[in-house]
Amino acid sequence: MEVRRAGERRIIRSLRRRFDRPSPSLPVGIGDDTALIRPSAGKHLLVTTDLLVEGIDFRTAWSSFRQIGHKAMAANLSDIASMGGIPRYALAAVALPKKTEMKSVHLLYSGMMTLARQYGVRLIGGDTSGSPRFVMVTVVLIGEIEPHRAVRRDGCRPGDRLFVTGPLGDSRAGLEILKATGGNPARRHRHLVQKHLAPRPRVREGRLLSLRGLASAMIDISDGIGSDLRRLCEASGAGARIDLAALPVSRPLARYAETKKRDPRRYALEGGEDFELLFTVRPSRVKEVRRLQSSGLLRAHPIGEIVPRSRGVTVTGPRGETPMKETGYEHFISTR
Amino acid sequence: MEVRRAGERRIIRSLRRRFDRPSPSLPVGIGDDTALIRPSAGKHLLVTTDLLVEGIDFRTAWSSFRQIGHKAMAANLSDIASMGGIPRYALAAVALPKKTEMKSVHLLYSGMMTLARQYGVRLIGGDTSGSPRFVMVTVVLIGEIEPHRAVRRDGCRPGDRLFVTGPLGDSRAGLEILKATGGNPARRHRHLVQKHLAPRPRVREGRLLSLRGLASAMIDISDGIGSDLRRLCEASGAGARIDLAALPVSRPLARYAETKKRDPRRYALEGGEDFELLFTVRPSRVKEVRRLQSSGLLRAHPIGEIVPRSRGVTVTGPRGETPMKETGYEHFISTR
Repeated sequence: MEVRRAGERRIIRSLRRRFDRPSPSLPVGIGDDTALIRPSAGKHLLVTTDLLVEGIDFRTAWSSFRQIGHKAMAANLSDIASMGGIPRYALAAVALPKKTEMKSVHLLYSGMMTLARQYGVRLIGGDTSGSPRFVMVTVVLIGEIEPHRAVRRDGCRPGDRLFVTGPLGDSRAGLEILKATGGNPARRHRHLVQKHLAPRPRVREGRLLSLRGLASAMIDISDGIGSDLRRLCEASGAGARIDLAALPVSRPLARYAETKKRDPRRYALEGGEDFELLFTVRPSRVKEVRRLQSSGLLRAHPIGEIVPRSRGVTVTGPRGETPMKETGYEHFISTR
Repeated sequence: MEVRRAGERRIIRSLRRRFDRPSPSLPVGIGDDTALIRPSAGKHLLVTTDLLVEGIDFRTAWSSFRQIGHKAMAANLSDIASMGGIPRYALAAVALPKKTEMKSVHLLYSGMMTLARQYGVRLIGGDTSGSPRFVMVTVVLIGEIEPHRAVRRDGCRPGDRLFVTGPLGDSRAGLEILKATGGNPARRHRHLVQKHLAPRPRVREGRLLSLRGLASAMIDISDGIGSDLRRLCEASGAGARIDLAALPVSRPLARYAETKKRDPRRYALEGGEDFELLFTVRPSRVKEVRRLQSSGLLRAHPIGEIVPRSRGVTVTGPRGETPMKETGYEHFISTR
């Protein structure tokens, strides 16, 4: 059945049936004019929203509705992760062409909520509307955090060490493969394509870093390390130096780059949407980070350090130290 | 300058400059990965989101960017109003065609925030993206309310009296005029057109009703009284009887309807987006409502009463009592 036949009320009724579970912390969920939340005593709230637009942020020829839902939720979870918070409540505003099948709507919400539930997140509301042509998904995520535990972008200073939680560049390579194959990638590229279409947010890593007070500043890599590291440095009034050879790269990316005769670290440097966390640690706390890493609790790759603002943001590679390019994704300039 | 030249970062920088005012209740506003809110002690939170899509919910030929922003915010404020809450924080996710002028973006946010500031609401975050063609605006609004003061849809019972906070049908007539004149209405229709393009939410009325515990159930009239009264009744497990002659109608609507040789109450009955509040009051509290009304603190027009569910939702007019039609707006069926 198409959504124009089903109508908004039936969509909401079906969402209530599938997702609405009022509880003491949530006296009113889906289906009233607003949701009603009882915040946990003593906690502060984190609020974020991300918008995905068909033709800009995704293509329905490449992404299933389930993957679109997953990715919209992942981007929001990653924002909460990068503050070190606990994700709790989600809302989804979705614009759909009238001919969209109800089955696709179900898959979209399943994609969102299958991922969200892994972190204990509940759907508490949203809105649906028709759309003249394109699918648009806005997810709103509300999280909680202990007072003074939120890890902001502006807390690092020269001498702090830079880390990332995982390999970079997979998503960019996955996108390249999707483009080159018109959305029909070979099986051997499954890992890279999957990293582009259904990334995993680093919620537990962010939580651990904030609870232990280990990160002096943190941001998630959504637009690319070039843009996101620069944002962190601008907010903190600092510069940074990263070591190209230290950028972690996955095996599938290394293999793929080899067939393309390119340096895999170029993908790591230029690609966005890996949703790994980029964080800084005071020199006195680096040992603790290493200990967590060797005990298997945290993935943390050292990639450089924070320097005085006057030295700018640079990459040290085979040709020495060069200014880091702002290679990140720009929503109004490039087209994906 | 077009947004594709300005880029997302410049948009965010300009929004920060205009709207970002961190404070004790808002340690982190626009510009980090998430906003950080310190909830007021002992208060619960209300969260809502509304989505407006070009070509479905508005047309740029009829609405200025300022009016689009105003209306998106008004719809959300109205949702908080209908729970009886205090609106506090807003986020806006906006998708814009690349050729959109930065000036239009400023007007869009001005429209939102000029209205929002009248209620003390602050912009704390959001997202922007390109769009292949259509403008889309999602506003998220977070409000606060004292525990057990939220007025839900499910609290009325037979015998309760039905009220609305103001005249109905203006918005529908305004839309009709815009359609008939291709977006160039005559000056004498300014009031009706304005009610369609830039409605006023009933935040203070909702607050007064919740603080005094006067409303047993409440909803805002966004899709039309036919749909919204039915929703209230369904949630409460009740029916309702409204008196056609009692529906309040504005003078401009009465005059306009006369020129069209139509009953103005048809507009009141069938039109949506008036954003007046529809609420129910126990018979023992009706006197208090009347007292507030005569002292000028509250607009409240009695329009009918709640009846047992078995009697359904009906309108009593010149032809006697007939079932009320679900005339409201359906986002996936009609086109505005």
